[in-house]
Parts: sequence; structure tokens; C-alpha cells
Amino acid sequence: MSELNDVASRSSLTGHEFFMKRALELAKNCSVLTSPNPKVGCVIVKNGQIVGEGFTQPVGGNHAEIEALNDAAGRGESCQGATVYVTLEPCAHFGRTPPCADALIRAGVSQVVVAMEDPNGLVAGKGLEKLRLAGVHVVCGVLAAEAREMNRGFLSRIERGRPWVRMKVAASLDGKTALSNGESQWITSEAAREDGHRWRMRADAVMTGIGTVIKDDPKLNVRLPEVVRQPLRIVVDSQLKTPLDARIIQDGVTWIFSANASPTKIDAMQERGVQVFSAINDTGRVDLAEMMKTLAEKEINEIHVEAGATLNGALIQAGYVDEMLIYLAPCFLGSGKNMLSLNQIDRLADRIAFDFHEIVPIGHDLRILARLTD
Amino acid sequence: MSELNDVASRSSLTGHEFFMKRALELAKNCSVLTSPNPKVGCVIVKNGQIVGEGFTQPVGGNHAEIEALNDAAGRGESCQGATVYVTLEPCAHFGRTPPCADALIRAGVSQVVVAMEDPNGLVAGKGLEKLRLAGVHVVCGVLAAEAREMNRGFLSRIERGRPWVRMKVAASLDGKTALSNGESQWITSEAAREDGHRWRMRADAVMTGIGTVIKDDPKLNVRLPEVVRQPLRIVVDSQLKTPLDARIIQDGVTWIFSANASPTKIDAMQERGVQVFSAINDTGRVDLAEMMKTLAEKEINEIHVEAGATLNGALIQAGYVDEMLIYLAPCFLGSGKNMLSLNQIDRLADRIAFDFHEIVPIGHDLRILARLTD
Repeated sequence: MSELNDVASRSSLTGHEFFMKRALELAKNCSVLTSPNPKVGCVIVKNGQIVGEGFTQPVGGNHAEIEALNDAAGRGESCQGATVYVTLEPCAHFGRTPPCADALIRAGVSQVVVAMEDPNGLVAGKGLEKLRLAGVHVVCGVLAAEAREMNRGFLSRIERGRPWVRMKVAASLDGKTALSNGESQWITSEAAREDGHRWRMRADAVMTGIGTVIKDDPKLNVRLPEVVRQPLRIVVDSQLKTPLDARIIQDGVTWIFSANASPTKIDAMQERGVQVFSAINDTGRVDLAEMMKTLAEKEINEIHVEAGATLNGALIQAGYVDEMLIYLAPCFLGSGKNMLSLNQIDRLADRIAFDFHEIVPIGHDLRILARLTD
Repeated sequence: MSELNDVASRSSLTGHEFFMKRALELAKNCSVLTSPNPKVGCVIVKNGQIVGEGFTQPVGGNHAEIEALNDAAGRGESCQGATVYVTLEPCAHFGRTPPCADALIRAGVSQVVVAMEDPNGLVAGKGLEKLRLAGVHVVCGVLAAEAREMNRGFLSRIERGRPWVRMKVAASLDGKTALSNGESQWITSEAAREDGHRWRMRADAVMTGIGTVIKDDPKLNVRLPEVVRQPLRIVVDSQLKTPLDARIIQDGVTWIFSANASPTKIDAMQERGVQVFSAINDTGRVDLAEMMKTLAEKEINEIHVEAGATLNGALIQAGYVDEMLIYLAPCFLGSGKNMLSLNQIDRLADRIAFDFHEIVPIGHDLRILARLTD
């Protein structure tokens, strides 16, 4: 304990930042089963020493604050007069669990430091207000950017009414995802493919288009030993052409967004346990805006897209792709399949702009994470 | 001096590596005017202290060893019994300057440590042999990989009989170098374009194809204040279609490689001061192998290619592109011009494979240096 304290005083971080960083680290331990709730970490500090730590448990379980209070109790520590660091504003309402703000007040803490307010309308400042009214000193905004990063999906759903969308592609240096004859299985290395599964795993849903379903018949599940929950699978399939024996509708939960499918087809699909949503736009295709709204309403925080040029292009063109996850293989294919189809643009000023966010070598390949420019 | 010595003893490098690293740093000071000679650095050490330093001067000037001996003399230091660190084997022949091996022997040095042998047939072990015969202790191979890196172009010309070829492209994430309508000027940022000029500057020649000459009418010169020598410009132009008023044949030296140009056209071009080489292959186009051989014979070490899809594809397909310099802009263009045209390949195993060598953010863009897989 005194070691940590020493580190805090030596570090270039302020004391608040030091302990908030620890709370952010704890939040990283949250299981994907925490979704649709945000990942939150909490640290309780008394006399400069950590006396309790916790992070939010799978949905329905304790929030981070309760876990940290319990941890302190288990260590025989009182939280009277303690400072609590939490990566998101404590809740003030009865949701799946009782309000955390009340529990902190009952424990007699004297100060609560949060990274950011919870934009959720049920909380949105009410948790902090409740603490203040009870005489607890409140600090807000410590390492806020890091805390936002932790819950991109949750924040997107709450603040924008649509999920955070990540699109994954594997391509050669000349931007080709497959040979002209369709061969594409091994453009990137095994290391990159395994890494791709790790990104699938953290998403609530993996999305693809009907073209890919027909061409590749993919499972789009997570093939990693540590998987605790297979993400929902979503197919964008205007005319409900997904074959009844497609792998993507076996062994797991699949939703299909269609536009003008026949009731017979819909019935047959529903009988297979597949949920079919209708969302049609002017051109008779799936209305992407309506689909995104529906997915947010269904509490889908984060979507991982692995599709072909058509759906990729449509999603990017509509501005729904928040980040690109590109595995770049150091080779050239020459002619071959393009990464995406876009409407022709005539001025470079009209290009769809991203910013590089993170570049990591993965095996022989390069993993590029790019974010849509604000 | 004693400081340096302390660093050497504290460092994880061996003493030899420590001083060779310094010699390699000195070699980086060599001007592009050193070409076609290799860039070489030299450090003279006596009693653990550096008493002389030098690097090869512009062609016709002193080699690194002579510079270091002169430096020591200027400091009033004797080199009797000293150890000499040099990044390339000292020469043993009378070329543009007298043999360095003789000068070192005359100075009475007792040990010479070199990073690598000089593959040049006129030296190739003869320098080291001469030193050994004179009773000088010789160590060879210290930081050899770093020394090779310093002189990629020189080594390629001597060892393989062709220049080191770097191909530069600026592309979007989907591998497009221009819009369908040809607009391409501002795909990458100003920082990337300036960086590109720095790579042009270090090359002996900048190469392009007739397509680019006709479409863009580029100067392909170096537009940086620090330029001391404009690289030679080379146009691959089978039928000698380069217009007589093209910018690329103004203000500087230009060579054109043609295949089946008429003598009239050749005469007109030569009158403009442009040297025209004929090198025709079976298909009536420029014979790339013959062109590379000619360029090596003309002592061109390093070529920087900025061309369109046709020449890019032909050079890559033929295996002449040693490294790709790709400025990747974080945007999508959708339809547009491809980076290169390749013969269609039907198996991924036949793709043309590179390895990522260096990834550097430049402004908003990413600079990717990839090397042809050995």
C-alpha cells in the first residue's frame, strides 16, 4: 500500500489522475457480459492508501462502486471519510441494481472523483447531485478522454442513438481484399486472423451482407478458447436471400434486416429461430438509419462489420462507420476485389476522411485503426 | 573524451560496437555528392579515447580514413598504435584517390575494425589483406547490417549489377492514387509531399513513365532549399512520345529509355540535350533488364520511381522494386486510379510479397517503407 502511495507522489500524474488510472485499469477487467452496461472501475482511497477496488460485474451483478465497498469491508477497512475514484458517474436510480450514489453516501465517504458524467438520461448529473446534496465533495472530469475510450459503444448508443460501428477489412497494399477469382482466405497471416477474432469477441454483434453470406457462407462466430459469449450475428439482406441452411443461422442468435421480403420467406426464417426486421428505404433496400436506430433500441453498443464491397461502401458512405480496422498485408495482388464500392466522387475535397488512431504490427501484417474525422 | 569512454564501458554495446556506431553516425553526414562512392565513416581511437573522426567527402575528395587521420593530425595526436573503426573496408587501389590501406599502415595504427568488406572487385578483401600483411590486427563484421543499410544503392550496383530501386506512391486506404477523373494533387498532406521530396533528394535518379509525363507534365525535381544536387531524371518511353516542351527535359539532366523510336525523334531529343538509350524487348517495349544494367554501368546507385500504374506494375512484376515508399492517406476514394497494374494472378501464393520495414506517421498520413521479401 505504501508503495503505491510512494509511486503516486513520485509520478508526474496528479494524485487524482494516479488513482483514476488504476480505476481505468480495473475497468478493463470487465467481461463482455457487462454489456449493454458500461465498463466501470472503482478505487477507494483512505489516507493515501487503496482500501478497496472493484469493477462492474456481468449485467445484473454489482456495479463497480458496490464491488469496491465490499472489497474494503472484506479487508476490514472503514470507508468513512474516504475518497472514491470511479470512471463513470455513480447511478442515482433503481435499475437492475439499487443506486450506487446511495451506497457511497451510506458508507460515509467524503469525496467522490469521477472521470465523466453518465450521459444516460436516468443518471446524467443526478448521481453527482445526490452526492453533493449529502455533503460529499465531488470532482468531475479526471482522465475523461480515457474513460470515454473505454465505453465508445455505450456512449454512442446513449448519446447518438446508434451503435459504435467498427469495420474490419484485410487487404493488400494495393487495397485488394481478394483475387479476381474470389480467393481471399490467406491474404493476412494467422496472427492477424486471430487478432481479428479478438475484435469480433468484444463486439455485441458481428454484421455482414447477403453477398458475403452467399459467396463465403461464413459462421462469423468467435473461434478463440477464451470466448464467454458469442456475439449476435446480423445479416443485411434486403430480399431475404439467406439460404435456410446457411452457417450464419446455425448455432447462435442471428438477426436479419430485410427490406421487401415476402411473408413466406420471413415465416420460414423465423421458424429457424432467426429474428427478421423490416426496414425499407426509398430505393427498396434496407434503410440503414432505421436499422441503426433499432439496434440501439435493442441495446446493441458495438458492432463489428465484416462484409463485402457493397455493404462496406453503403455504411461508409452513410457515415455510420466510426472506425476502420484494417489488416494490411505487405503484398500486391494487382487486379482483384476492392475493399469497398462508393459513389463516384469528382473532387478530392469530397473524399471520406478518417484519422489514424493506432498502428500495430501483427505478425507480418500491419493493423491500422482509423477513426472517422469529427 | 573520458566521458565517451565512460559511456562505452557502461553501455550494453561492446567497445567495438560503441565506436563503430559513432563511425556509422559520421557516415550519415556524407553528402549525396559522395555518390557513386559509398558513404563511409571513420573513428580513430587511442587509449580508449577518440583522437580523430572523418567521413567520405564528395566524389574526388578524401575518403573517411584520410579525413580521420587528418583530423587526428590537426589535433596534434599521433595515430601510432591506434585502433581505427571504419564502416567499410579501406581501399587498396589507386582510384580517384590513393589507397587508404597504405595511409593507415604509414600512420602506424595497430588495429583496424571494419563493419564489412567492400564487395567492389577492386577492393574485395585486398584492403584487409594488405593491412594484415603489414602486421595490423584486423577485425571484420562489427555492425555489418547497419553498415549495409547505409549503402543499399552502392551495394546493389556492385553486388547485383543494378541500382537499388525505391518506388513511391501516395494512396488512399483503398489503394487509389487518384480519382477517376485523374485529380490526385492533394491525396496526402503537405508534410507527406515534403517528405517525399527528401526521398527524391537522396536518390541518384528519379524515374517515371511516359504516361505520367503526358498526363501530369511533372518536373520531378527536388523542391527543398537544402538541395545540393538535382537528381538525374529518367523517363521510360518506348516510342519516344515525350513532348519537346515537356518540363521534365528542361533545366537539368534527363535520360530517356526508348524501344523503337525513330532516328528523327531521337535526334530531336538529343539536340535538346537529352540522352536517349535504346533497349528493346520481345514485345517492342523498353527492356527493363537492359535498362537496369545500363544504369548500373553508368554508376547509378539508387533510383526513386514516381510513376503511374503501368510502369509501377511492370517494375514490380519484374522484381526490380526493392522497396516501396507508400504515403497512406486516411481516407477512401472508392472508384479511382489503381496504384499499379499487374498481370492477373490466380493463386494467392503467387502474390508479390514484401515485408514492412518502417512505419512512420507524417502529418496526418502514414509513411510505410516495405522491402521486397528475400
